[in-house]
Amino acid sequence: MTPKKAIFPGSFDPFTRGHEDIVRRASKLFDEVIIGLGHNTKKHNRYFEVNGMVEKIQTVFKDEPKVSVQIYNELTAGFAQRLGADYLIRGLRNTTDFEYENSISQVNRYLFKDLETIFLITSPEYAAISSSIIREVHKYGGDVSEFLPFEI
Amino acid sequence: MTPKKAIFPGSFDPFTRGHEDIVRRASKLFDEVIIGLGHNTKKHNRYFEVNGMVEKIQTVFKDEPKVSVQIYNELTAGFAQRLGADYLIRGLRNTTDFEYENSISQVNRYLFKDLETIFLITSPEYAAISSSIIREVHKYGGDVSEFLPFEI
Amino acid sequence: MTPKKAIFPGSFDPFTRGHEDIVRRASKLFDEVIIGLGHNTKKHNRYFEVNGMVEKIQTVFKDEPKVSVQIYNELTAGFAQRLGADYLIRGLRNTTDFEYENSISQVNRYLFKDLETIFLITSPEYAAISSSIIREVHKYGGDVSEFLPFEI
Amino acid sequence: MTPKKAIFPGSFDPFTRGHEDIVRRASKLFDEVIIGLGHNTKKHNRYFEVNGMVEKIQTVFKDEPKVSVQIYNELTAGFAQRLGADYLIRGLRNTTDFEYENSISQVNRYLFKDLETIFLITSPEYAAISSSIIREVHKYGGDVSEFLPFEI
Amino acid sequence: MTPKKAIFPGSFDPFTRGHEDIVRRASKLFDEVIIGLGHNTKKHNRYFEVNGMVEKIQTVFKDEPKVSVQIYNELTAGFAQRLGADYLIRGLRNTTDFEYENSISQVNRYLFKDLETIFLITSPEYAAISSSIIREVHKYGGDVSEFLPFEI
Amino acid sequence: MTPKKAIFPGSFDPFTRGHEDIVRRASKLFDEVIIGLGHNTKKHNRYFEVNGMVEKIQTVFKDEPKVSVQIYNELTAGFAQRLGADYLIRGLRNTTDFEYENSISQVNRYLFKDLETIFLITSPEYAAISSSIIREVHKYGGDVSEFLPFEI
Repeated sequence: MTPKKAIFPGSFDPFTRGHEDIVRRASKLFDEVIIGLGHNTKKHNRYFEVNGMVEKIQTVFKDEPKVSVQIYNELTAGFAQRLGADYLIRGLRNTTDFEYENSISQVNRYLFKDLETIFLITSPEYAAISSSIIREVHKYGGDVSEFLPFEI
Repeated sequence: MTPKKAIFPGSFDPFTRGHEDIVRRASKLFDEVIIGLGHNTKKHNRYFEVNGMVEKIQTVFKDEPKVSVQIYNELTAGFAQRLGADYLIRGLRNTTDFEYENSISQVNRYLFKDLETIFLITSPEYAAISSSIIREVHKYGGDVSEFLPFEI
Repeated sequence: MTPKKAIFPGSFDPFTRGHEDIVRRASKLFDEVIIGLGHNTKKHNRYFEVNGMVEKIQTVFKDEPKVSVQIYNELTAGFAQRLGADYLIRGLRNTTDFEYENSISQVNRYLFKDLETIFLITSPEYAAISSSIIREVHKYGGDVSEFLPFEI
Repeated sequence: MTPKKAIFPGSFDPFTRGHEDIVRRASKLFDEVIIGLGHNTKKHNRYFEVNGMVEKIQTVFKDEPKVSVQIYNELTAGFAQRLGADYLIRGLRNTTDFEYENSISQVNRYLFKDLETIFLITSPEYAAISSSIIREVHKYGGDVSEFLPFEI
Repeated sequence: MTPKKAIFPGSFDPFTRGHEDIVRRASKLFDEVIIGLGHNTKKHNRYFEVNGMVEKIQTVFKDEPKVSVQIYNELTAGFAQRLGADYLIRGLRNTTDFEYENSISQVNRYLFKDLETIFLITSPEYAAISSSIIREVHKYGGDVSEFLPFEI
Repeated sequence: MTPKKAIFPGSFDPFTRGHEDIVRRASKLFDEVIIGLGHNTKKHNRYFEVNGMVEKIQTVFKDEPKVSVQIYNELTAGFAQRLGADYLIRGLRNTTDFEYENSISQVNRYLFKDLETIFLITSPEYAAISSSIIREVHKYGGDVSEFLPFEI
């Protein structure tokens, strides 16, 4: 049987405990999970530096041989195709996420016919956490350590 | 590696093309997909007779060796545990579904710690179809053949 | 040009000021608006008696020659086709309505290819009012006169 | 200053840890919180017997002098007025709750001009729990003790 | 009878098959449909050049004498009033659209008392397509031809 | 008894009749309501000048001794803690607001354990009004006086 390969795409600015939860749960189902950090170097608008974030994510999953991290700068559907991944993984926190992800997943199926998006619902203790809220709290010097799976 | 077994639970009164779409897409990901038709004989309130429906579903998937159908009359979490299935599969059509499924999936994880629910978003051409609308149309003599994967 | 005929379907148990608002606004756009009161005599589960309700609705629109009322006991799509109406009118109060109406309108287009559903958003002062809330209030002897365009 | 009195209305069939969470948080804000268990004896359709439930709720709050329980069989707005309570308290779990509560709270303000509804968002660990899911699990012999603030 | 004139406003960056679907369906109901492309030249932030887009839209509807295109740089309500149009047409794709359009349509009725907004629900095959997703796909060199009613 | 102090945070660009409605309703429940205008001077991106807005808000509540206004430039949770306020007040207009506020309120409880957010649902006549729509209308010279509790 062909190994089942999945991409977990995002900008991960930063990667949160909610993201970690989705990756750990998805990694039981797939043979390989690639965390795809989408980054367009021309935009330069990240809050947390991209290479440092990749290293931190790698540390989180250093004992999970199925999980790896890659930076990409192309369409997610194209990235998945290039890597031979037939699945995207996405977490759903609430109905706003749902409506957005619904559109994106349909478009991805248009662009790459075999690309299936698998959704997990974020565990309730992490559902309130979003990268944008964490950036906002961090910017004002608030303590975000409880929301992140690593020191920052 | 242990085979990955999933339950697709529902009352399937009737089983629709939307349900078929979810099963076909999920069966690529799992080694075994069991369509679990939940039925409480004491309630007697189905519109389409249960055994006839099971046979029709079996016909739809007669060329899919991974897919089978079972009637159950217990908690879905208990049914999954009894069959050794670690996954439930659910289709999401819209935000009303999302809010309902969100609650159910959290409760299932309380009841059976290893039970993970995997969501697929229903393909847009089937998203409007619900079993209850089909029953309503059928009751008034409307033609429902376009919504079903079999003759009725 | 063919006159533009529209059905405003519902169970109207009771017909509310919110319904009246939709009919008055829609009647500017159409040449004829038929309020279709769907009623299945075998179900016998109305709270407000059906013929009395029809008379009250007729009183509300006695000066609107474009607006009439009919009882029907068939699929809404079939009723529209029989009357030669190419349009259904529906009011949207909130997102729960939207998800439900979205499904129904797609199914109606399957059943009767030319049947278009036109949506108006309920005026905010009426958006909280639903027939089921009014029945609940009335059952306990509460004053519902402010929600209805007629005495009851 | 007049004491601030609030009603927390519901059918509480059963009263859950989610309900308990709302009452404990609201009782900091009000001088008196009356848990109003709405019950129409003619309907006879409770799953958990009403007087037993009242006793269990009383046990939960036996050390909270501000909190009491009453059965009522009238409109919630009328019950509040009769008790001289100017506030209703409601918990919001998700958008489906929001749309429903939005309508109810507007209607309550029509019926009793001074009646203000105060909303708390249910703590995430309890947001999945609803009385109807608990009844369903209990009916099939599932263990619901984790969802309830008392033995059953 | 006064001809019924409607505006279909948007930024149309780009105009999609979803937009085309709404215009074709609405043009059966109205005597005249003006596609109003809102553009503020000082903002300079379009992805697709405005005059080119107008020409492409005109090509799509070259056989529909009822449909025309105009650029405007003012409030939509003011544009409608200036053209003597009593109706706005909007497509609804999902609940996020609904909440946004609900607010906008109420404000438009405050600003211009006779301005009624008519909603159509986007056909399911186009509901996932948004102009912003198309821009994102196009920016990365993805093929967007299937989402557009013209070559680009 | 300790006085009950609440913050009503926002950017209030501008402060609307919807905001005024929430403050007046909340001020019955609390001993003190502080309208906290969050402003980061480095961002310089307000449409309405900040000090002028504070003065206008003060005029609106000049006869309400419980209500005051303060500018702050820190996390809302920290601002509340510094002022000894245990409550935040937020208005909910629709489901989009709900999902956003749900996340924010959970994060605030993480950051400051005793910080409770109390929600009121915006009165229907003000639910369509948002500061961003008002800015858009004002920018194009539209009349926004009906949406504001003061002249501008």
